[in-house]
Amino acid sequence: MQQARTREQLWSVLRPWRLAGQSTALVPTMGNLHDGHLALVAAARQHADRVIVSIYVNPAQFGAGEDFLRYPRTLEDDLQRLEAAQCDLAFLPDDRTIYPRGLDGATQVRAAPALANVLEGAFRPGHFDGVVTVVARLLNLAAPTIAVFGEKDFQQLLVIRRLVEDLGYPVRILPVATVREPGGLALSSRNQYLDHAGRVAAAELSAALREAAGRIGQGKVERREVEREAQERMRRKGLRVDYVAVRRSADLGEAQQDDRDLRVLAAAWCGATRLIDNWPAGETNGPADI
Amino acid sequence: MQQARTREQLWSVLRPWRLAGQSTALVPTMGNLHDGHLALVAAARQHADRVIVSIYVNPAQFGAGEDFLRYPRTLEDDLQRLEAAQCDLAFLPDDRTIYPRGLDGATQVRAAPALANVLEGAFRPGHFDGVVTVVARLLNLAAPTIAVFGEKDFQQLLVIRRLVEDLGYPVRILPVATVREPGGLALSSRNQYLDHAGRVAAAELSAALREAAGRIGQGKVERREVEREAQERMRRKGLRVDYVAVRRSADLGEAQQDDRDLRVLAAAWCGATRLIDNWPAGETNGPADI
Repeated sequence: MQQARTREQLWSVLRPWRLAGQSTALVPTMGNLHDGHLALVAAARQHADRVIVSIYVNPAQFGAGEDFLRYPRTLEDDLQRLEAAQCDLAFLPDDRTIYPRGLDGATQVRAAPALANVLEGAFRPGHFDGVVTVVARLLNLAAPTIAVFGEKDFQQLLVIRRLVEDLGYPVRILPVATVREPGGLALSSRNQYLDHAGRVAAAELSAALREAAGRIGQGKVERREVEREAQERMRRKGLRVDYVAVRRSADLGEAQQDDRDLRVLAAAWCGATRLIDNWPAGETNGPADI
Repeated sequence: MQQARTREQLWSVLRPWRLAGQSTALVPTMGNLHDGHLALVAAARQHADRVIVSIYVNPAQFGAGEDFLRYPRTLEDDLQRLEAAQCDLAFLPDDRTIYPRGLDGATQVRAAPALANVLEGAFRPGHFDGVVTVVARLLNLAAPTIAVFGEKDFQQLLVIRRLVEDLGYPVRILPVATVREPGGLALSSRNQYLDHAGRVAAAELSAALREAAGRIGQGKVERREVEREAQERMRRKGLRVDYVAVRRSADLGEAQQDDRDLRVLAAAWCGATRLIDNWPAGETNGPADI
């Protein structure tokens, strides 16, 4: 596995691949890699000749008071996992490579507001602007054939699809299903903030979502009621709920009576740790075809 | 000369060029081509194997009440000029190709505020956001080796350089000096809104800027005074001045005593027509090395 830290190093690795006509898949991450990330790498491996994983904890997508400073950084371990997962190139930019003139006063990408200002965006103002700005830059730097994102961050996936469509990036976005612990908890770097009791409570987030998705899928229930009951179930286990919402999978719009392809999304605090998860609902009840 | 109207048509022309390893230069225009544009095409010709000229009157960079609707559209004439100038590809997108989901609610690029909110940006709020958004999309669609812009729109040139630097587009920006009529008037599509008397008055814009730049170049004068006198000279000829400003060429910052690489920029109304121009000043008094 090769490594690149600067744009020049990155391009010197990419050039021979391009000349050889090889396709590339980029997996953007913030490091602290777990099996969820490795599922992204495996999907990348299946769909492209070469796999690039970027590791960059992007300050622009953290709000004031969020966990940017304590976000887990485990580079040595990450590199070993990537090597084992047959990643071809680890791109490890520093701040200067991503934001050559700093963040303040720079050209910025603003995410499509209808997608970016609801749910996560309502609780984390500016978060998705930070996401699309760094993704735009990574796409410009690496110019991959495919970029891979997890359904765990479902709203992020839609926001990035919209970025690619609106600004015309010549890249295919490949979504990958969420990887879960046996108890149902979606894998996340933030899970390690949790102690044992926290993990038990956190598992309730996915369990409540799964139940809600199942009830919606049967089509005999009022969505508001399902949201309320899922929220109540989470609260009983000690979670502090930011939102539980049944939305259209395609655009996160409020679900109407006729909509079939739905998603139940939630964010909740387990102590000082904020977790998000989502589950496909509606008629298919399988991974949303987005 | 080939033509492309959709992304698919564009890519089918670009693909063999790329496979052959040919470099490309993109000249983004709003059409109504004059000798200023043809100087951009000639520069493109010199620096790349293939020349692409895009023609698209971008609604996003016009403000409410500006001249979007009456902006001159002269496609047949434009195509003849491009053919004669040995352009390889005319890219003629419609609104749907540039903004597939429309403008409202789309992902947008916001230009670097310190560059984009002064001078033109102060008089045309949102103008440069519209410019960088369409340029970002054109760069994604055409992925050129070089993109060519005229110094006539000097602030736009800096804003686009910053876009490319901040978001990491793998493209070189090639600036081209302003082309002028014998009387000094900078060529512009908006000149055709002027009658004969208007042209005489408009020529005063460049004459006053040239004089101001010359005085600044001699280094013995107070800049505020030069700005004031240039403004006064324009007013005497019936121009309504939006601004005359001596600024640093590199970042349009307020010129300090020690700054050497300066530019005098102005915008003024000649009747109902708004014109802009600029002139290099300071020690070199040649085209700014930006």
